[in-house]
Amino acid sequence: MSLLAIKSIKSLAPLLDRVLVQRVKAEARTAGGIFLPEASVKELNEAKVLAVGPGGLDKNGKTVAVSVQPGDKVLIPQYGGTGIKVGEEEYSIFRDYELLAKINE
Amino acid sequence: MSLLAIKSIKSLAPLLDRVLVQRVKAEARTAGGIFLPEASVKELNEAKVLAVGPGGLDKNGKTVAVSVQPGDKVLIPQYGGTGIKVGEEEYSIFRDYELLAKINE
Amino acid sequence: MSLLAIKSIKSLAPLLDRVLVQRVKAEARTAGGIFLPEASVKELNEAKVLAVGPGGLDKNGKTVAVSVQPGDKVLIPQYGGTGIKVGEEEYSIFRDYELLAKINE
Amino acid sequence: MSLLAIKSIKSLAPLLDRVLVQRVKAEARTAGGIFLPEASVKELNEAKVLAVGPGGLDKNGKTVAVSVQPGDKVLIPQYGGTGIKVGEEEYSIFRDYELLAKINE
Amino acid sequence: MSLLAIKSIKSLAPLLDRVLVQRVKAEARTAGGIFLPEASVKELNEAKVLAVGPGGLDKNGKTVAVSVQPGDKVLIPQYGGTGIKVGEEEYSIFRDYELLAKINE
Amino acid sequence: MSLLAIKSIKSLAPLLDRVLVQRVKAEARTAGGIFLPEASVKELNEAKVLAVGPGGLDKNGKTVAVSVQPGDKVLIPQYGGTGIKVGEEEYSIFRDYELLAKINE
Amino acid sequence: MSLLAIKSIKSLAPLLDRVLVQRVKAEARTAGGIFLPEASVKELNEAKVLAVGPGGLDKNGKTVAVSVQPGDKVLIPQYGGTGIKVGEEEYSIFRDYELLAKINE
Repeated sequence: MSLLAIKSIKSLAPLLDRVLVQRVKAEARTAGGIFLPEASVKELNEAKVLAVGPGGLDKNGKTVAVSVQPGDKVLIPQYGGTGIKVGEEEYSIFRDYELLAKINE
Repeated sequence: MSLLAIKSIKSLAPLLDRVLVQRVKAEARTAGGIFLPEASVKELNEAKVLAVGPGGLDKNGKTVAVSVQPGDKVLIPQYGGTGIKVGEEEYSIFRDYELLAKINE
Repeated sequence: MSLLAIKSIKSLAPLLDRVLVQRVKAEARTAGGIFLPEASVKELNEAKVLAVGPGGLDKNGKTVAVSVQPGDKVLIPQYGGTGIKVGEEEYSIFRDYELLAKINE
Repeated sequence: MSLLAIKSIKSLAPLLDRVLVQRVKAEARTAGGIFLPEASVKELNEAKVLAVGPGGLDKNGKTVAVSVQPGDKVLIPQYGGTGIKVGEEEYSIFRDYELLAKINE
Repeated sequence: MSLLAIKSIKSLAPLLDRVLVQRVKAEARTAGGIFLPEASVKELNEAKVLAVGPGGLDKNGKTVAVSVQPGDKVLIPQYGGTGIKVGEEEYSIFRDYELLAKINE
Repeated sequence: MSLLAIKSIKSLAPLLDRVLVQRVKAEARTAGGIFLPEASVKELNEAKVLAVGPGGLDKNGKTVAVSVQPGDKVLIPQYGGTGIKVGEEEYSIFRDYELLAKINE
Repeated sequence: MSLLAIKSIKSLAPLLDRVLVQRVKAEARTAGGIFLPEASVKELNEAKVLAVGPGGLDKNGKTVAVSVQPGDKVLIPQYGGTGIKVGEEEYSIFRDYELLAKINE
């Protein structure tokens, strides 16, 4: 977990194909509407995209746009990513190709 | 196994060349029509495709469509894939190239 | 060994550059015509091609046809491949480039 | 940690896609303005870009410019990079693709 | 060592860039004409090419011919290759790029 | 450490993208002009380029010139390179991409 | 060490980008002209090129000539290469890119 002394997470602009996300914490409930105990909530692999990089480069040096946008909800893998802490809040940075799925609600 | 607090699996849209599948549980029977005990059924590597991503990128940055479609039945590998749990149901996400065969019935 | 509850192996259509084969069991004999004991027969690395995939993709996203056809007899490697069981019969799936040689008789 | 007997860090011109940075030490404070104890400050993963290389080469031998400029503040990974010591000051060299994000303040 | 129940090694047609060879056994002698004891002969890394595949594929999907022909004598590496047994005779299959040199006599 | 029985290091012409360097020994001093004890001097990662290869090849077989020239001073990595001994003098050979930075004085 | 029962090392024609060399044994002397004891001579990494292959293939299937010629003296790496014994003489085969430098005398 990297500690950052910045005033706002909005100061972070991911590089290349990186995607800055924050795990979803509020309103954790099962498909049936039942609220989950806090331990389960922590392990939810849903995250909200806060910022995306300009895209990585293909073998010819051309930029390839990332596949998600700020505001998207995504399914993130159980392991991996780089943890960041700003104040009391935790965030993660993933490479675009590590994100598993978009969550359309 | 990732726990997801979404209302319906239909909210999941796989990214890149990923394929969302659910193992076949019902009507498990041998080629001769004999019904299998539950333990065997669990290990069946047949799955139904629920959703597919837009496709991965080749070395020139062009999208390459995945080789299966929603509704297809497929032979999945014994190991691998990412497990997901929504409510009581379990699903898996595979990369397209990990799927072994289509099952035409 | 994956267990499949399909009625016929003919339902399996390999994906990409995969090749579905079944080891040769009958008429196992040496070059001199001498019949082999059952233990040896099991280890024969001859197999019959039952079905082939449409082919893998090269770096430009074009399909590359596999190098064998249904009906071909092939020399398979001693290890590798994915085992499948349908009813009492066992089959294997290999990637095309794993097959060692065609057997012309 | 490499020891260098040069008079000024300005003598160092990174090669290919390398980026010379120095971790931010002064004015370490949380997002809420609270000053951090020295131990925490040391672990901040913020760094200032001092110099950048001309860029690496793509598969066709063309130079690909790095994605940051001297003066940029960046989020560096917790591990990796090459440590350098000139006099009492410590610096690091990273490959451009190892930098996680720009910090815009 | 794979056991094959074929009548003749001539039935084997290597796939892709594979080369079927048989180690040289007869007339083993040193450069000075002295005959070698059987133990040494076994370890000779000279082999005769019996059959070659049509060639592997380059990155654009084009066939690249192998660099030896049936009848060539070649220097094979001390380890590697796939052993095959037909009747009492032993053979090996190598990838073309594993062969070290041609032996011109 | 390879021992070479050549008369002069000038006889060595590096191949491909290799760079022949010799660590800087003389005049080791800190940025403030203070002379360093011998132990520290040994560990300085500054080196002088003595000779460079014609350059490596890109994926299309074209030569890519190395990024330094004879006479350049460079920052070399702490580990790696191939040690060579000619008479009493020691040298190292690095691949061009292993060199970290030029030192402009 | 592979034993070869050929009459002359001249029978060996390396394949692809391989280079056949023999370590320099005679006239081992330091830069100052002092003759070295036999133990040191054995470890000299100087070798004479006896034969070269036609060259390896780039990604487009085109032949890339090797960078040395028969008669060249080269600096070989301390480890690696394939040892060959013909009669009482020992030789080595290297890939072209493993050779470190030409020795011009």
